[in-house]
Amino acid sequence: MDKFKVTPWEVEGRIDYNKLIKDFGTKPITQDILRVLEKHGRLHVMLRGGYFFSHRDLDLALDDYEKGKGFFLYTGRAPSGAMHIGHLLPFIITKWFQDVFHANVYVQIPDEEKFLAKRGLSLEEIDKMVETDILHISSLGFDPHRTFIFRDREYIRHMYTPAVKVAKKITYSTARAVFGFTNETNIGIGFYPALQIVPTLFEKKRCLIPAAIDQDPYWRIQRDIAESLGHYKAAAIHSKFLPPLTGPEGKMSSSVQETAIYLDDDPRTVKEKIMKYAFSGGGATIEEHRKRGGNPEVDVAFQWLHMLFEEDDGRMEEIRKDYRSGKLLTGELKMMLIEKLNRFLEKHQKEKRRAEKLVRLYMHDGKLAKRMWEG
Amino acid sequence: MDKFKVTPWEVEGRIDYNKLIKDFGTKPITQDILRVLEKHGRLHVMLRGGYFFSHRDLDLALDDYEKGKGFFLYTGRAPSGAMHIGHLLPFIITKWFQDVFHANVYVQIPDEEKFLAKRGLSLEEIDKMVETDILHISSLGFDPHRTFIFRDREYIRHMYTPAVKVAKKITYSTARAVFGFTNETNIGIGFYPALQIVPTLFEKKRCLIPAAIDQDPYWRIQRDIAESLGHYKAAAIHSKFLPPLTGPEGKMSSSVQETAIYLDDDPRTVKEKIMKYAFSGGGATIEEHRKRGGNPEVDVAFQWLHMLFEEDDGRMEEIRKDYRSGKLLTGELKMMLIEKLNRFLEKHQKEKRRAEKLVRLYMHDGKLAKRMWEG
Repeated sequence: MDKFKVTPWEVEGRIDYNKLIKDFGTKPITQDILRVLEKHGRLHVMLRGGYFFSHRDLDLALDDYEKGKGFFLYTGRAPSGAMHIGHLLPFIITKWFQDVFHANVYVQIPDEEKFLAKRGLSLEEIDKMVETDILHISSLGFDPHRTFIFRDREYIRHMYTPAVKVAKKITYSTARAVFGFTNETNIGIGFYPALQIVPTLFEKKRCLIPAAIDQDPYWRIQRDIAESLGHYKAAAIHSKFLPPLTGPEGKMSSSVQETAIYLDDDPRTVKEKIMKYAFSGGGATIEEHRKRGGNPEVDVAFQWLHMLFEEDDGRMEEIRKDYRSGKLLTGELKMMLIEKLNRFLEKHQKEKRRAEKLVRLYMHDGKLAKRMWEG
Repeated sequence: MDKFKVTPWEVEGRIDYNKLIKDFGTKPITQDILRVLEKHGRLHVMLRGGYFFSHRDLDLALDDYEKGKGFFLYTGRAPSGAMHIGHLLPFIITKWFQDVFHANVYVQIPDEEKFLAKRGLSLEEIDKMVETDILHISSLGFDPHRTFIFRDREYIRHMYTPAVKVAKKITYSTARAVFGFTNETNIGIGFYPALQIVPTLFEKKRCLIPAAIDQDPYWRIQRDIAESLGHYKAAAIHSKFLPPLTGPEGKMSSSVQETAIYLDDDPRTVKEKIMKYAFSGGGATIEEHRKRGGNPEVDVAFQWLHMLFEEDDGRMEEIRKDYRSGKLLTGELKMMLIEKLNRFLEKHQKEKRRAEKLVRLYMHDGKLAKRMWEG
């Protein structure tokens, strides 16, 4: 049996997502709930391809929308290194939900979390990353008047009072059980969960959180205390971890260059990395591959295409069949991914160069941002 | 042997202050150090009478002053109930130090601490107390351009970043050992020590903290980490606890009416309380008292006069002798205290009515306050 580990600070091993659903007590995103979503807008490939695979109360959020009450969206990014493609995915699905459901989006940039959680990372280093990270996020086309991006250390003036109310309800023993805190945990990271929970209370509506499933412990605590604070339990949709290029285990890491495609990578680098490192489910030789076929389940190029990029479901099924049969070679499959990736990155990098002005709107001058600073 | 307990949240029993000095590893305030202080200004009665009895690095702070570098002062008040006379004493001695050493004073109002530490106290209730508490503090005559009074939940915008740096250096196990935190401690009070330590880092000078000795655990932690943050270890002078009217054990409590003289008490109430409740070291009857004399060591009226009010040391010695011999009766001693107390409160209440304007200077518009908000 494969062993794996999933906490907000560590993801290791080959993850059994069905077991995670059981362990965490969440629900699978079923065809039924996808059909409800589909009534409102064409499903995003990350939903069709199963990258977002689990949820809590997504059905209730959709009910709220249909009843006219609506919901709001919340996600975030803790700067700790150059952003890779995996970091962008929760934002992309959040943008999809904003477009389809006209919802407000809150983006937390916890510019203290990784400083507190990691040895040897200074606040000054984080501050240098923050700006670039916000530019990346601001390149995705969020509605400038319905989106608020905030840094913890700046927006703390509005977060501390609600954080204190949240913190009073979380004991050491709860934090220890949920996050695995030890005697060596510092009191800063001990307090941090309160700050990650606060944005779920920004509106008197249900909050829907798209995030990787390692963040679920925060939402479990939120759901235990939200109602006693006069708020809704947070709803969430959980993504899998984007497998690192080098193999189907763990998650893509900013600190290991060859496992990741960075948002600033140029086309040649992308091509080289995919060709050289992308873990293949194909045969050891072309002859063997033609004879026995490939295994799409472990093939990273296939998985990325399937979960993130191939909009055409029919085409994707063809690729799966051809790869399994051996008709499609690993190299060919990789070229497909390279093309999609580079098209995506080219657009992203272009938008990023134009995003400076948007940052001001998202952080301070847009309608929602203004209201949040005044409130 | 008497048992006693001293933590920032509990003070119980008859306190052996010499043992506290040993247990906490502080130094007694000796005649030698008082002589150094006296070079700069007439000693305050709380120093002469031994109410402030212990210190850390007071000698170094005085050296810094003599070398022209100077030091700054820091104390505070966590609102949780009506202020009594005991609450004012650290501020009175702080004011004395400001006058004598021309030092900046920082006053922290942790308007979240007691909410986090106490069951059944709401932030709304605290907010009501904050204003009155600040008025009381502002009545003492601090220099409006060298004094900054701030509430945690408001000033957090400037405190959170340094607090994060402090918090990273304090582990759960340290907090547990120093403060006695348990599994039931909430993560908010777990983080709070970082915020109480931050003001010790406000200037690149030595910080001198006048406070009751139960606050010393905070300064012990501060002294362990300050130098690694490029700052001085905090200096402190420690007061005893003002004995409650009702007896020489524990400390005066806001929640037990008859143990305390409140800052808003009128002269009649003061007289009644002292006459009725002030624990007497005198004989059970006048005859017995005349014969055997009284015990000034446990007599609350004597102790208050000695530690807080009687400016004339010669007069105080007379009172001690006369009370011990039986010449001075308990009722007479109490009348002396009542007179001093009421004179003090009359002046304080008058100043308080005029303090509104000063509050703005201390909190926002004075020179130091302005610099702290801009910084």
